[in-house]
Amino acid sequence: MSKHSQNKLMKIVIDCLGGDNSPFANIDGTLITMKKLPELSAVFVGDEAEINAELAERGAAVAFPGRIEVVHAPGVITGEDKPTDAIRLKKDSSMIRAISILREDESVGALVSSGATGSLVAAATLRIGRIRGIKRPAFCPMLPAMTGGIVGVCDSGANVDISPRQLLEFAVLGSCYLKSAFGIENPRVALLNIGTETEKGDELRKEAYPLLAGCENINFVGNMESRDLLTGKYDLVVCDGFSGNVLVKTTEGTALQLLKKIKTDIMSRKKYMIGAAFMKKMFMEEKEFMNYQNYGGSVLLGAEKVLVKCHGSGDAAGFAVCVEQAFRMQSGGMNEMVSRILKEIDEKNEREE
Amino acid sequence: MSKHSQNKLMKIVIDCLGGDNSPFANIDGTLITMKKLPELSAVFVGDEAEINAELAERGAAVAFPGRIEVVHAPGVITGEDKPTDAIRLKKDSSMIRAISILREDESVGALVSSGATGSLVAAATLRIGRIRGIKRPAFCPMLPAMTGGIVGVCDSGANVDISPRQLLEFAVLGSCYLKSAFGIENPRVALLNIGTETEKGDELRKEAYPLLAGCENINFVGNMESRDLLTGKYDLVVCDGFSGNVLVKTTEGTALQLLKKIKTDIMSRKKYMIGAAFMKKMFMEEKEFMNYQNYGGSVLLGAEKVLVKCHGSGDAAGFAVCVEQAFRMQSGGMNEMVSRILKEIDEKNEREE
Repeated sequence: MSKHSQNKLMKIVIDCLGGDNSPFANIDGTLITMKKLPELSAVFVGDEAEINAELAERGAAVAFPGRIEVVHAPGVITGEDKPTDAIRLKKDSSMIRAISILREDESVGALVSSGATGSLVAAATLRIGRIRGIKRPAFCPMLPAMTGGIVGVCDSGANVDISPRQLLEFAVLGSCYLKSAFGIENPRVALLNIGTETEKGDELRKEAYPLLAGCENINFVGNMESRDLLTGKYDLVVCDGFSGNVLVKTTEGTALQLLKKIKTDIMSRKKYMIGAAFMKKMFMEEKEFMNYQNYGGSVLLGAEKVLVKCHGSGDAAGFAVCVEQAFRMQSGGMNEMVSRILKEIDEKNEREE
Repeated sequence: MSKHSQNKLMKIVIDCLGGDNSPFANIDGTLITMKKLPELSAVFVGDEAEINAELAERGAAVAFPGRIEVVHAPGVITGEDKPTDAIRLKKDSSMIRAISILREDESVGALVSSGATGSLVAAATLRIGRIRGIKRPAFCPMLPAMTGGIVGVCDSGANVDISPRQLLEFAVLGSCYLKSAFGIENPRVALLNIGTETEKGDELRKEAYPLLAGCENINFVGNMESRDLLTGKYDLVVCDGFSGNVLVKTTEGTALQLLKKIKTDIMSRKKYMIGAAFMKKMFMEEKEFMNYQNYGGSVLLGAEKVLVKCHGSGDAAGFAVCVEQAFRMQSGGMNEMVSRILKEIDEKNEREE
């Protein structure tokens, strides 16, 4: 038994079903991360026989003594299921059982799933509480900055009609996320706007700006125009879920469409085809570089416990990244950090009133 | 004298100053289009001596008899001028004088300028009326669809806090613009949203959807996700100016950043550099293809007269495109079409009430 495993274990519940490569990618991915992080233990939820067979094949009992539990819940929720029905009717599903464990087992701090997003968000919203001071949880996907770093977008679609105060909440959530999960010390936070000048934007942005600028707990650097998203000048962009969704999906769509056009144009001339033969690897890498699914799961921030949604078509390596992300958020005290900052903000507001 | 020039002339006022290549690009560009369109006549506003010298050099008096006027107003408004001050204090400037001519001369139907956008929009809003039934004018830049066509985005930034009815106005304005300026018969209009399902979006989108779907005067095809902007499935996307601005600038920014990254990556390996040597022309073309300034001016739709803003750094060819665009909008009866449709919509609403 290693020295580390005698420390307090950090337990994460793994929804083993619902992804294209489930349960294998989920189980193998989790074991990859458990090998890397000796403090991590896992509760695998899904078809017990399937899980045990996979664990046995990997020699998991010997490799990770006392760090594995298995819970039998063989039902699968798919994208076809209506979220509210899924929650009500599919109680034997791995996802709903995993959510119940996350809710009820105090020793479990995080959940990782590659199941249907809609049902996961609905179940999490209904069953898992919110951090005190957070009105509603928000998504925060990470995109690649062209300089090599990453940039988070919070919220990217969970909240479409919001208040200026919620933009401040997103700034706090995203900052704590970047600190805990990615070790970014003092994340540069920008407000998505239609110009960089202080007075720019709609009513929401005009009211949010002084809230963000006046908050000592975040590193607010001002307004950002969307054309600068990938320049590496910012670590986090806060926005309502509508424009955040436009920001993320336009970035994805433009990159894919442009690479597709380049491919078509290459095929139009022999000269280009010769040139491209030297560059095949590079073009593959550009495509992978722009695929934001490669930069970790789509984290739902603001819930009382950590929730990471893996890409449904991801492999074991992708799942392993998501498990590590969940572990770092939990061990880095993401939610405690958020609570503390929100408390400080509210106390400051009360003093000033 | 050609047969055409005996027809009724269509007069456009040209602001000759304010662009990086003014007045030459403005004058030469206009002459290019006048040669192409015998019904077009021009009022050049700027430094009279400069304009006359340029016209003389081009032999314009002989080439375009009775189709040219020159108005002396040598002041220049720059991006540094505060729009409200510019309007009030720079009455001798080419832009303000051109706006006055557009306002007062009934025979003039359109204005083309490459001057400061802020001042132009402010002057147009204050001095030129709106089409009856239009709450506020909107921008509608054109982007390249990857299939070879174009797609318009209305509004791209003039109106940030809007009503559902305004989205319908943008749909009518954009449709009439595409018909008159680009000859697109039955433009496919989409509503920018965070998903394609009918019920998606924030309050604004949920209320606007039935208005758009119920309007028989436009060809509404449903919600569009931003990742599909460039696919060629849509001719016009309607959105509030905030998310429209995000849509256009993210598209521009992602394409530029990605092409920049490809350039950097090419320089990182000899093998890629060899390949790229075969493809230099293609990469140049991709960059030009993605530059949405190449697809006409940033038209301000909804004003009582046609206003086209050329790119400030454009050349004569770019200015010529903008002049032709203004001519087509005017000769195609863009504003009359808008008025007629809005009247029909209002009458239908009254009948149903």
